[in-house]
Amino acid sequence: MRYPLPLQRLIEAFLFLPGVGRRTATKFAYQMVRADPRRVRELSQALLLAQQELRLCELCRQLSDNTRCPICANTSRDATQLCVVADDKTIMALEQTGAFHGLYFVLGGILDPVNGVEAALLPLPELLKRASSGVNEVLLAFDGDLAGDTTTAYLKQELRNIPGLAVSALARGVSTGTLLEYADELTLTSAIEGRKREQKISAP
Amino acid sequence: MRYPLPLQRLIEAFLFLPGVGRRTATKFAYQMVRADPRRVRELSQALLLAQQELRLCELCRQLSDNTRCPICANTSRDATQLCVVADDKTIMALEQTGAFHGLYFVLGGILDPVNGVEAALLPLPELLKRASSGVNEVLLAFDGDLAGDTTTAYLKQELRNIPGLAVSALARGVSTGTLLEYADELTLTSAIEGRKREQKISAP
Repeated sequence: MRYPLPLQRLIEAFLFLPGVGRRTATKFAYQMVRADPRRVRELSQALLLAQQELRLCELCRQLSDNTRCPICANTSRDATQLCVVADDKTIMALEQTGAFHGLYFVLGGILDPVNGVEAALLPLPELLKRASSGVNEVLLAFDGDLAGDTTTAYLKQELRNIPGLAVSALARGVSTGTLLEYADELTLTSAIEGRKREQKISAP
Repeated sequence: MRYPLPLQRLIEAFLFLPGVGRRTATKFAYQMVRADPRRVRELSQALLLAQQELRLCELCRQLSDNTRCPICANTSRDATQLCVVADDKTIMALEQTGAFHGLYFVLGGILDPVNGVEAALLPLPELLKRASSGVNEVLLAFDGDLAGDTTTAYLKQELRNIPGLAVSALARGVSTGTLLEYADELTLTSAIEGRKREQKISAP
């Protein structure tokens, strides 16, 4: 037995969403067929409009509905600090901390040879140009996994020839709330190696 | 920091899909914004077309692109057997067995007072009319949980006044592959109560 064609086409279309298999796509399709037509039109239109109205910010390459995103357009941000991230979602996370006041650069991916993301796919020329334009420090902010570390190491190498530029990376260590007995070895090693020494009280 | 408006609207629209929270909706939205425009148009159109082109089969109320679904239109099916199911997906599952040759009736839901599905929301008059039109047996095929059992009990009650109609329900017992030591008590009780006795060899 087969699904009616319009339902089948909708299931196939939902299969394109990340992490959605046939079972979930079928559930989505049935729900949408029986849903309020207004909600279905909303989703249908939002899909088209999002692609039509969004572009990459000309400076940081995050999605924006303007030529420049609100962060790059904000003149009170510190333009000498540039934080390089994999995607827009990292910017969201970092902005919530309120601890970084500079500008961003979205790589749009990370080096991940296993999944076929090579250096040639990353906008390296654009990054080098940005990092050479009045920037004092580049902060590399990638996930704490193999692909993140690979990208950090690669970009450190690429950026080191820019004169007067400091390159840093997010600190590695014990996450807030971690119980040491359950922390993994790599995290503990990072925490020991990156330990902060208090200033010694000098002998009188 | 807020998302650009077209992205925000797309995230809100995805939130309407069953089981999709804000995190998943955001992932979907980012993927679709950066996706091949052809795939995005496909999903956008499939949503509209599915609602426009699908209707309920006039006999069984499953989704169909015709007035009658392929099963109801198939004159070689046994019209004296009517299987009542909660949704279209159950028909798919039952058809794959090849063990039922009659027609179906889709309730479009089950009695689930906890989640606010009352008897008044089910198409009971339509079911009673169908069951009174040349049907010999109604097979109730619902999930083996509380809501399924409640619906089975309720429909047995409603159908018992139709003269000459046998009402049955799917057998309960040990699933194929189940190890008895891990089977739950309710399943084992059903399996004992529903046990099949071999014909006794009568004494000479």
